[in-house]
Amino acid sequence: MQRYFVEPSNMGEREVMIEGNDVKHITRVMRMGVGDHIICLNNNGREVLAQIDKVENHRLVAKIVKEHKNLSELPVSVAIAQALIKGDKLDYVVQKCTEFGAKAIYLFASDRSVVKWDQQKSAKKIARLKKIAKKAAEQSGRLFIPDISFTSHLVEATTEVEMRLFLDEEKAKKHDHTGLFDALHQHPSSLLAVVGPEGGLSEQEKTIFCEHGFQGISLGPRILRSESAAIYTLSALSYHYELSR
Amino acid sequence: MQRYFVEPSNMGEREVMIEGNDVKHITRVMRMGVGDHIICLNNNGREVLAQIDKVENHRLVAKIVKEHKNLSELPVSVAIAQALIKGDKLDYVVQKCTEFGAKAIYLFASDRSVVKWDQQKSAKKIARLKKIAKKAAEQSGRLFIPDISFTSHLVEATTEVEMRLFLDEEKAKKHDHTGLFDALHQHPSSLLAVVGPEGGLSEQEKTIFCEHGFQGISLGPRILRSESAAIYTLSALSYHYELSR
Repeated sequence: MQRYFVEPSNMGEREVMIEGNDVKHITRVMRMGVGDHIICLNNNGREVLAQIDKVENHRLVAKIVKEHKNLSELPVSVAIAQALIKGDKLDYVVQKCTEFGAKAIYLFASDRSVVKWDQQKSAKKIARLKKIAKKAAEQSGRLFIPDISFTSHLVEATTEVEMRLFLDEEKAKKHDHTGLFDALHQHPSSLLAVVGPEGGLSEQEKTIFCEHGFQGISLGPRILRSESAAIYTLSALSYHYELSR
Repeated sequence: MQRYFVEPSNMGEREVMIEGNDVKHITRVMRMGVGDHIICLNNNGREVLAQIDKVENHRLVAKIVKEHKNLSELPVSVAIAQALIKGDKLDYVVQKCTEFGAKAIYLFASDRSVVKWDQQKSAKKIARLKKIAKKAAEQSGRLFIPDISFTSHLVEATTEVEMRLFLDEEKAKKHDHTGLFDALHQHPSSLLAVVGPEGGLSEQEKTIFCEHGFQGISLGPRILRSESAAIYTLSALSYHYELSR
C-alpha cells in the first residue's frame, strides 16, 4: 500500500491532512480517491492506516482507521557522514542510505572532494536530497526520514554520537579488517561512519578524527567506490543487529 | 596503480601482451609509456607487476617484474542470480556485484520481469555487461572478473552450487530474519542468492525453488529495491566471512 510522510502537525487524533505534491501523486499518479486507503507517517514515530475522506485541489483529508506498529528501524541510531562527490552519485548515496536504514546523513567538504558547495548551492542541494530521502523512506517502509545536513564542522556536529568511525584504506592494506566487528561488540547506542571522497580521506583529516576519538576501520580487502562504502557499512550493521542470532 | 585484465594466453612467464582498448587507455588516457609500471591479471589466479617495454599501435608489451599475492577474493564462491530489471539498474547491479565480490552473475527472466530479452538482444547486453564487470574488477582490485551469463534454466544452471538461497519478502513480513545467518553457519563452500525483479518473485517461482532445495531468506525489515538486494547480500557475506572474528 502507498505510504506518505506528512508534517506532524497534519496528523491529528482522528484525521490526517495531506498537502502539496503528495495530493497530486495520490489522485493523478495512483488514481485514488474517496474511500481508498493509504498509510501515513508523521516522521515522529507514528504510522497509521487512513481512508481518504475528502479530496480538494491542493489538500486531501483521510480518516485514521488504525495505528500501525512499525519495526523497520535499525536498533542502533546510525549516521553516515559522506564527503561531497559528484551530484548523481550523491543522490544515489542518499537514496540507498535511506533505504538501508540511516538515521542521519551528514555531507561535508573533504580535503580531496573535487565538488565544492557554497552556502547558497548547499541549501538547494539539501532541499533536493531531502525529497529523494522522503521518497526512499516511503518506498522502503521506514518509520523516519533521515535528517540530511551539510556541515563544515563534522567533528563538532557529531559530538553527541557515542561511537565515531571513519573508513581507512590503510587498515585494509594491512589486512586489519576486524575494526567494525570489534566496534559493534562494544554495543554503542549510536554510531557514525565517515566516508571519504573518491580520493579517500587525507592524512590530516584522519589525524584530526583520531585526535577526537574516531576509530579507523576497514571494509574488507576490495577497494570500494566512495558511493558504495556507506551501503556496505549499513548492510553489515543490519546483518549484525537484525539478521544475526 | 592501474590494473588491467588480459587474456590468459597473453600472459607468459616473462612478458604480458596487452591488446585492444586497454592500449588506448594506457597510452592516451593514462599517458603512460615505456618504463612505466602497471598491474596485469590473467583472470586465472595470476596478478603481476609489469613494466611497459614496447608500445605499438594496437598492442603493448610489458616485462613481468614481480608476481603479486592477491587476497581480495571472498573465501566462499558467491553467485548472484538477478532477475531482469531496467537497463541502467542492471548495469549498476553488475558493477556493484563485481565491486562487492561476486564470482558469478546469472541473469534470468523472472515471471514479473517487465524487461524481456530475446537471444540476439541478450548477446549484446551480456557483452556490454562483461565490459562493465571487467572495469569494476580492475578498479576494486579483484583477482577475477565475475562470469556473467543469461539463463532460461536457472535451477539447472546452478546445480553445482552447494547452497542456494532466494530472497523472500514473506519471511521479512513474518519478522523471520535469521535465515541467512543460519545458512552461513552451515559453512557452504559455494552459495547462490536469487534476487527477484521490482515486483518480487512469483509464488510459482518460489515453489519451484523450494522443490529444488533453495532456501527462502529475509534481508531484514526494510523493503529493498531489486537493484539493492544483491549488494546487501554481498556486504553481509563480506562482513560475516572477512570482517568478523
